[in-house]
Amino acid sequence: MKARVHVFLKEGVLDPQGKAVASALQTLGFEEVLSVRQGKFFDIETSSLPKGANEERLKEYCKKLLANPVIENFKVEVIEP
Amino acid sequence: MKARVHVFLKEGVLDPQGKAVASALQTLGFEEVLSVRQGKFFDIETSSLPKGANEERLKEYCKKLLANPVIENFKVEVIEP
Repeated sequence: MKARVHVFLKEGVLDPQGKAVASALQTLGFEEVLSVRQGKFFDIETSSLPKGANEERLKEYCKKLLANPVIENFKVEVIEP
Repeated sequence: MKARVHVFLKEGVLDPQGKAVASALQTLGFEEVLSVRQGKFFDIETSSLPKGANEERLKEYCKKLLANPVIENFKVEVIEP
């Protein structure tokens, strides 16, 4: 399976890194920039799994390792089963 | 405009962070994991720009700040013009 997983801060959680990027862009002259939020993503390749197990498995990766459930949400996307 | 920009290492550039994630997943019992590559993304909101200028502008953000052109590629995506 090929998949992409996005991990991003929950709404309401401060994102100082995103804020820094926004003000850096403004300083560079891009004054139209209103806000930036930064997240990370993972491109994951696995050997094939039982049919229909892909999404569930990706969610397990997130819960066990990739995301911090206190402050982060995630979104999984199977690109090639 | 609302947009999402993905920044990721060029093919062939080593990704130790992704490698660490892959072996951590394997250690956790997810032995099907073959490889992981990690990237970052930015959700950007701007005040409205002249029609047709959106993509070009996002690429400028990448070239000037968001991506390191020596080792990273980027992909811009306008979500709401």
